[in-house]
Amino acid sequence: MSQEQGLTPRAKDFSAWYNEAVMRAELADYSAVRGCMVIRPNGYAIWELMQGALDRMFKETGHRNAYFPLFIPQSFLEKEAEHVEGFAPEVAVVTRAGGKELEEPLVVRPTSETIIYASFAKWIQSYRDLPLLINQWANIVRWEMRTRLFLRTTEFLWQEGHTAHADEAGAEREARQMLRIYRRFAEEWAAMPVITGAKTDGEKFAGALRTYALEALMQDNRALQAGTSHHLGQNFARAFGVQYQTADGGLDYVWNTSWGMTTRMIGALVMTHGDDVGIVCPPKLAPVQVVIVPIYKSDAERAAVGEVADRAARELKAAGVRVELDAREEMKPGAKYYEWEGRGVPLRLEVGPKDVAKGQVFAARRTGGKAPIPLAALAAGVARALEEIQAALYTAALERREANSRRDVTKDELIAMMAGPGGFAYGGFCGAEACEEAISEATKATVRVLPDEEFRSPTAPARCVWCGKPSVTEAVWAKAY
Amino acid sequence: MSQEQGLTPRAKDFSAWYNEAVMRAELADYSAVRGCMVIRPNGYAIWELMQGALDRMFKETGHRNAYFPLFIPQSFLEKEAEHVEGFAPEVAVVTRAGGKELEEPLVVRPTSETIIYASFAKWIQSYRDLPLLINQWANIVRWEMRTRLFLRTTEFLWQEGHTAHADEAGAEREARQMLRIYRRFAEEWAAMPVITGAKTDGEKFAGALRTYALEALMQDNRALQAGTSHHLGQNFARAFGVQYQTADGGLDYVWNTSWGMTTRMIGALVMTHGDDVGIVCPPKLAPVQVVIVPIYKSDAERAAVGEVADRAARELKAAGVRVELDAREEMKPGAKYYEWEGRGVPLRLEVGPKDVAKGQVFAARRTGGKAPIPLAALAAGVARALEEIQAALYTAALERREANSRRDVTKDELIAMMAGPGGFAYGGFCGAEACEEAISEATKATVRVLPDEEFRSPTAPARCVWCGKPSVTEAVWAKAY
Repeated sequence: MSQEQGLTPRAKDFSAWYNEAVMRAELADYSAVRGCMVIRPNGYAIWELMQGALDRMFKETGHRNAYFPLFIPQSFLEKEAEHVEGFAPEVAVVTRAGGKELEEPLVVRPTSETIIYASFAKWIQSYRDLPLLINQWANIVRWEMRTRLFLRTTEFLWQEGHTAHADEAGAEREARQMLRIYRRFAEEWAAMPVITGAKTDGEKFAGALRTYALEALMQDNRALQAGTSHHLGQNFARAFGVQYQTADGGLDYVWNTSWGMTTRMIGALVMTHGDDVGIVCPPKLAPVQVVIVPIYKSDAERAAVGEVADRAARELKAAGVRVELDAREEMKPGAKYYEWEGRGVPLRLEVGPKDVAKGQVFAARRTGGKAPIPLAALAAGVARALEEIQAALYTAALERREANSRRDVTKDELIAMMAGPGGFAYGGFCGAEACEEAISEATKATVRVLPDEEFRSPTAPARCVWCGKPSVTEAVWAKAY
Repeated sequence: MSQEQGLTPRAKDFSAWYNEAVMRAELADYSAVRGCMVIRPNGYAIWELMQGALDRMFKETGHRNAYFPLFIPQSFLEKEAEHVEGFAPEVAVVTRAGGKELEEPLVVRPTSETIIYASFAKWIQSYRDLPLLINQWANIVRWEMRTRLFLRTTEFLWQEGHTAHADEAGAEREARQMLRIYRRFAEEWAAMPVITGAKTDGEKFAGALRTYALEALMQDNRALQAGTSHHLGQNFARAFGVQYQTADGGLDYVWNTSWGMTTRMIGALVMTHGDDVGIVCPPKLAPVQVVIVPIYKSDAERAAVGEVADRAARELKAAGVRVELDAREEMKPGAKYYEWEGRGVPLRLEVGPKDVAKGQVFAARRTGGKAPIPLAALAAGVARALEEIQAALYTAALERREANSRRDVTKDELIAMMAGPGGFAYGGFCGAEACEEAISEATKATVRVLPDEEFRSPTAPARCVWCGKPSVTEAVWAKAY
């Protein structure tokens, strides 16, 4: 891709734009293995920042990291009936190892409930061992037919939390707590507004009692599930015999939760904030937050400008800013701008001879707008600019989402919306599986969530969008990734 | 395991002691999958500290993290002849996925040279793209017949660095630099003395030009390979067509290096520093560096002691110390001591009524020795104690290694040493494969390294230990893990 070519505009072909934006930013690449991608350094650096933010919040809430085997005996998967039904069609299976056929095939983990709860059964004896709060950072394999970089790949990276509690209320509190943590991460780090709520029975995790999810609206008005938190009830505890001695000497099964967020969030970040030039990183998740580009013609100018640029880079680094000084000599400033814009760097500082004379740098925001920052207050000025960019990205995404959401839709409106512009459609729902399926068939839209209270419409819809019977819950429909 | 039972003494059965020490510290557990282990939170926390230290050094030297597919097409492995010969017998193979037989089986990565250099071939065009310095944190699968927790497991975690350079000298510098970084990590973080040097042709990595390694001596006088750094020459570049345009317009193959360190280092840490009570963590790799245990009888004492213990914990945390306050009420101090000793916590601070009266805490070192630290200088006193423990562990391990090393051994001495106490045997080597094999057969000892200059004996041995012909290089033999 050369500077002249540019990206396919989003309005013309969002899907083509997405792939080009990911490739231009060098976030990822295709591999020789069907459906598997390579996460390139620029993409992996975003993942490391995501991991750091999530891991800190997990640890602050008492979770500890561990690591469980990649391979799961096929028989384990079969112990929970719904679970195997959900995952069996998409697993990769090791049948040969060390030069021999295996007696029992090993499944490459599509999720780790079964192998982890087998360990929990050994570790948990008494109520004193509860709650047990574990998280794992790992790779996961699900054999997907249609794959997209980051959004849907055969192998992906994620974290999966797995916890055990003495009672239902404890597990419920945990599942809701982790949903809140994910929401906080989405909003505060990824600048990505989300709706939280419960999934319908038809959309919940295979083996769960209840699934909570957070849903974001991409720029093409399709929904993306950004994370899930499952209350698993005692289903897996019964399947794996995870019992504990209660405080009064009885014996009971534990209550489990599991919750996960994946490298898919990198794709969500691209599709939430990107523009026709390329990706835009929210400052908190930007591997490079600030790039400094010196501008000069003569050698004398280069020396003067270079000294100021150097000093600015050192000062910002000392202030904890992730800064790069782009001093490449064989490259013109315009080409550098283009490259860093494509990589989504939120703030560019240009330092030319006039700026040096005025004791300032010129700050260009990736989101638009240029203004000088005095060298005398550089760190503070940059910090403020980054905060403003972070906030502006969130606000713009929220406004876009609200502009593309409709409340209390009728059947005709729902059909027209999903045939046309897409977006989030809020409406009444009778709760019947038949209606859910009919809507999905007619519109290709699914119930994304039964929204939590803070996202519900001020007046609860009276009737089901589809059948007209009394609504038992509000629902949010959208076509989804 | 109860307090009364204790561990099998090292002198009685080192192997039994090792397993018990790992289990008592809850570092790892066996899993239902043959040869695969579970890394429990206490063990994973050590790994996270190891990762942090290594990752910082990798990044400081210009390396960037990325992630490549878990699966490798069987045909890729076959492109480099020595490589496939080395790894084919121990791979796990996915033959079925998504409910279908695969046309081409996929190997679960036993190492990633092949899949990574296929990407390098796409990314590298010109000398301007070099050097390319990549690292990956990943899980690895090698089908092992005899497994031991951490030391040899079917699946393990590691980092693998992969770099490409314009010329042989660049690759050689890189391979040596990474060996130095590993040595620094082993010595400064793990308090583990190592010998560095080159492997013989018989012991080098399958596909490498040269392999460098670091070797440590465990308490049972067996050697453990703690890390390797390979100069791969142009072998993989030729196999995968990794070519670049040179500065003068020609076309050449790149020179590659790869280097790795694994979760095996956790086992090495246990076997280097552990005693008959359990593991001992060097402070820099201790997830809990300091545990505070309040000691009291009456409620009034509990209140007074608790306040001081609380304040001490807060003060140490603020000073960046990884500290735990063990305020469990149902447990006696002695039982707490025993538990934290088994987990290898380097420093225990006891706070009793007399200590409160004297304005001090009582500091017991895991390595032996007790002394008060005045509360007025708590953070400084603790920091000094931790530094001293770190240094003492290294010194003790170095003295033990030197006491179990013999220089310029004769054939008879080598045989007697390997039949008896074990240890590092330095001697002359003619370089012939026949001698290497004969020694290995007769003594079960292998050449661990041809030592780097700083580890060689002051006077070079004149004759080969085995055949008596002139020595071409000094070698270090040992029985190894």
